Formats: sequence, structure tokens, C-alpha cells
Amino acid sequence: MTPVDLKHAYRLLNHGPTVLVGSAHAGRTNVMAAAWAMPLDFDTPKIAVVVDKSTLTRALIDASGVLSVCVPTVAMKDLVMAAGAMSGNNQPDKLDRCQIHIQEAPQTGVPLVQGCIAQMECRVLPATAHVAGPHDLILAEVIGAWADERVFSQGRWHFENAPPELRSLHHVAGGHFYAIGEVVQALPVANA
Amino acid sequence: MTPVDLKHAYRLLNHGPTVLVGSAHAGRTNVMAAAWAMPLDFDTPKIAVVVDKSTLTRALIDASGVLSVCVPTVAMKDLVMAAGAMSGNNQPDKLDRCQIHIQEAPQTGVPLVQGCIAQMECRVLPATAHVAGPHDLILAEVIGAWADERVFSQGRWHFENAPPELRSLHHVAGGHFYAIGEVVQALPVANA
Repeated sequence: MTPVDLKHAYRLLNHGPTVLVGSAHAGRTNVMAAAWAMPLDFDTPKIAVVVDKSTLTRALIDASGVLSVCVPTVAMKDLVMAAGAMSGNNQPDKLDRCQIHIQEAPQTGVPLVQGCIAQMECRVLPATAHVAGPHDLILAEVIGAWADERVFSQGRWHFENAPPELRSLHHVAGGHFYAIGEVVQALPVANA
Repeated sequence: MTPVDLKHAYRLLNHGPTVLVGSAHAGRTNVMAAAWAMPLDFDTPKIAVVVDKSTLTRALIDASGVLSVCVPTVAMKDLVMAAGAMSGNNQPDKLDRCQIHIQEAPQTGVPLVQGCIAQMECRVLPATAHVAGPHDLILAEVIGAWADERVFSQGRWHFENAPPELRSLHHVAGGHFYAIGEVVQALPVANA
């Protein structure tokens, strides 16, 4: 994994992939799948992600104030499905059951999921409690970002030059995903 | 376009497409492109979308309290690029220049963009001013939804059975998009 310039971190989510959200607090670590994540700002880079109040992930993020957001691949489809279906509250060994391998992020210790094509460590923005309450919405600043150079370099995704199993996943429903697909280049705009 | 059951409306954005955001107030109508949009809740269906404070779209939404969110296709790539690059503030005839054809949504009159594979009309949630301020974030309830039956039926996308130009667009940077790609089916999870 190669560090991503923080001003380009928003591009890791710009195309709308399904993500894995990692959390850790007081010796407990969890990873869940989330389809509802997006960039919120460029520079300082910020993201928004929806994490249900009933989840262990939410409890750990609320307690620690930090989280990770990683972009999994086609090769990881069954892991993502399992991470979305199992609860860390009910399955204390969820990470083992899901075959999720992690390493600790350097600044915060949140779990970065191995095999992902992008990894971010994030700090929850301080004034979001009033949003989080009614809407399960977490707003966070990205303080570290990494990507797999085979598919992301010079601030851009380049899926077309890499093996198809490295493409991002985009969840529809019930374990039915699409991989990101072919390049579409629009015409430049004159007199904008 | 066929009505979508509101409890399935979140699925129109679940896979992370780039969208067109429509607005109308006091005789002015605008449409802009936005890559930062996601579902926020299932039922009642809600969405979150980032719309910069400097835009005409934002002014019209703030004044009217309503907006549309539509999902454009590969066939509409140049329209989407133009709608993202041109400002309705500087170009009063932006819709003509972008070759955007609209119809008014039945409940709110917001512009629904023709040729899109999904269309939603939405009402801004009342308590979001404090979020919108610092973060340009709009939270809204979906009150009407439609989709193109060739690619969305029975509450699910079915891009694999339709012409490739009907696939959704996922923006990377600078007019460089990916189309949504191939189906990836994960294994069901036992003992979740």
C-alpha cells in the first residue's frame, strides 16, 4: 500500500464503492460492511458514513472517536457479505469467522483491512452528535490514506490496467454486487 | 418510467452512482451533477447529498425546500460533464446548453431529468440547517421515485440484461467515469 496525498483522499470514495468500516476501543476490534459512505469535503478531506446505532461498530466509534474506512475488492466478496451479515455483538470472534486480517493504523490504531485497495484512518468531527443521533450519520476527517498502486496512482483509479478481481464492489441488495466497470470519458466542456 | 415502491428507493443510490440534482424556485430551474450522494435511511427513505453553498442549485433548494435526484446513464456522459462544469449562476440558459430535458415532478414541481434510469423527488428534512451550514450537506426525504424498467425492476437493478449505454456512471475526476460493471454474487452467510 502506498500513501495517498490527503488532498486526493476523497477520490477513493468518489465512485461510490461499498466499504468496510473498522473500529477499536478498550481491547475490542470490529469490522463491518457499509454501502452508505461518500466524500464530504476535498481539503481538509472529510467523509460521511451511515452506521446504525445498534451495531458494535457504532459503540466502538462513539467511544473512541476514530474509525477506518477501507475499499474491498471483488476477490473479497464473501468476506464483505459476511462482515455485513454477522454482528460483532453476537459473534465475538467475528473477524476470524469472516477471515478478516487487519493491521493497526499508525495514528489511531483503528483496524485497516488487508487486501483492500484503499484504506483510510479517520477522526470523527466533534460537532456531529446532533446529526448522528437522529440519522446514524458519522462525519469524519481523513487523517491518513493509502491505496494499492496497481489500481490507484497519481490521484486516480486505474482499474482498467489491473486484474478484474481488484475492482471495487458496489452493493445492490442481499449479497448481489456489481464490480466497477469500463472507462467512460466525457467530452471537455467549452465556455463553462 | 415506472413508480418505485418507496421502501426500495434507497436501492436507486445503494451502488454509488453519480447523480443529477434538480431544483426550482420562483421561475428559475437548475440541474447540476453531484458525485457525493448516498442513501441515509430505508423506510422512511432518506438521502444525503453534498451541494456546495456557492451554487445556484443550493440557493434554489434552500429557498424551496425541495430537490430532485436523478441517476444518469453512460449515454448521458457529456450532459453530466457539462452539468457539472457549467454554473447556472453564470449561464442562465444552462439547461439548453447542456441539452437537459426535464419534466416537473408531480408533488413538488422539481425538475426530473429525461433519459435518467432513476428519478426521485425529495423534501429537505427540517432540522438540517446546522449540518448544511458547515458541511454543505443536504438531508432529504424521498417522497416519489421512478425507475426505468429495462434496468430496475422488482426493487433491484438488472443492468446485466440491458444495453450497456443504460448503465449508471461513477465519476473519478475530470470527466473520467466508470460505468457500473459485471454482476458479483457473494455466498450466503451461515449462522449469522
